[in-house]
Amino acid sequence: MSQQKVKLLLSYDGSKFAGWQRQNDGSVTIQETIENVLSKIFNEPVKITGSGRTDAGVHALGQVAHFLAPKDPTRYKLLRGMNALLPESIAARGAWLAPDDFHARISAERKTYKYHIYNYPLRSPFKRHFSTWIERPLDIQHLNASCQHLIGEHDFKSFQTAGTELKSTIRKVFSAEWTPLKNHVLEFRITGSGFLKQMVRNIVGAAMDLNFQRRDPQEMAQILAAQDRSKALGTAAPEGLYLVKIVYPDALDKRCRKL
Amino acid sequence: MSQQKVKLLLSYDGSKFAGWQRQNDGSVTIQETIENVLSKIFNEPVKITGSGRTDAGVHALGQVAHFLAPKDPTRYKLLRGMNALLPESIAARGAWLAPDDFHARISAERKTYKYHIYNYPLRSPFKRHFSTWIERPLDIQHLNASCQHLIGEHDFKSFQTAGTELKSTIRKVFSAEWTPLKNHVLEFRITGSGFLKQMVRNIVGAAMDLNFQRRDPQEMAQILAAQDRSKALGTAAPEGLYLVKIVYPDALDKRCRKL
Repeated sequence: MSQQKVKLLLSYDGSKFAGWQRQNDGSVTIQETIENVLSKIFNEPVKITGSGRTDAGVHALGQVAHFLAPKDPTRYKLLRGMNALLPESIAARGAWLAPDDFHARISAERKTYKYHIYNYPLRSPFKRHFSTWIERPLDIQHLNASCQHLIGEHDFKSFQTAGTELKSTIRKVFSAEWTPLKNHVLEFRITGSGFLKQMVRNIVGAAMDLNFQRRDPQEMAQILAAQDRSKALGTAAPEGLYLVKIVYPDALDKRCRKL
Repeated sequence: MSQQKVKLLLSYDGSKFAGWQRQNDGSVTIQETIENVLSKIFNEPVKITGSGRTDAGVHALGQVAHFLAPKDPTRYKLLRGMNALLPESIAARGAWLAPDDFHARISAERKTYKYHIYNYPLRSPFKRHFSTWIERPLDIQHLNASCQHLIGEHDFKSFQTAGTELKSTIRKVFSAEWTPLKNHVLEFRITGSGFLKQMVRNIVGAAMDLNFQRRDPQEMAQILAAQDRSKALGTAAPEGLYLVKIVYPDALDKRCRKL
């Protein structure tokens, strides 16, 4: 019998982690922490594959990962066992028996991120790890006006931080919108077919800089068209960013069975 | 010239502190952290007096404290200086020149606390320091029915944790209400003339236990009437508790001048 594939839904407070991806420098990552817990449960080494990496300090409400279970996973209370062993900063929210052709990264159809800015003159002790503190007032209409230029299929090379070589830097953005929440928080929510390295943080950084420099929101379209990272202004800090949701094709979801 | 009294409005994430009150055992407290910052600013030892203590792990949105400034405080950018020197877990939100007869604790007319319960089967990495996780479903109608018996002037001895001897354990509760918030959070908000040691946590603990044990909400009145701590059931955990607001007499507020 081939090994059973398992799909996991995970949330984590990324503040204290060196990001998702396992490192070889002794720093503690989310991937490694979860792999250690699964290896303990199955008493055999387990490797997991995430839908994508998140940077140090970035959070997830709905990260998805898969792994091949070395033993029959239906014999374990997997969710309960994981949550008992995981640190409080990581929670396993769901587990499914997945078909062999399910792949957390490759099968993903769309992803949603959100970015929270605490836009107030005084910093907040409660928001410091969960939003980015920006003292100067931002204009939400300006932010929305610039970010609407990102919607559609484009080459997002201008918003890609160097480091990972990819075949294509073309992605499709389905929606990108700023909304004011209560308590002086501005929320940016973006859904796309996929995201390049630090793409959301680079977009938020560019939108804020265009606003602060009183430049025409239209310039976002020019930055995008330039396909040149050096044109794209700042990168927003990691602590305001959340991976919200990964959507897979319905047909694939239907072939997953709740564990 | 007598020393100038200064009133401070403070907020803090209490997770990492051993409470408000300065300790002599090397643990880091909020009072001590603020005193060290003020002593550095004025280059002379400064002692502060809070409106009351908060326990280890308890938060404050609007704690109030006063101190006697060893030098003319109008010569300093006090708020900006404090926030530059304080750790990110503490913020100074306001500073006023206060009249000599202002006293953070003695002048307080009423105080409001809130308590947040995350009432959901799975724990949340984001709420762990800022609400108490209760897996079993609570019935908000039951909680409200029991807590309404606390409204009015009563001897709250049953809800006082031993440790501090007080002349009187009679306090007046103006309002006490549970409200469901979004994302499975239940909020308890209570306003009173003052609160005994761990009174809010003991009230929340009793209300939850009456609910879980399917007892008549009316029993809260009996626990109150017993004036006996041993009758009052559990104590809720500190991480869900926030000191929200201290109200002073209008006439006194009017004599404070923004710094």
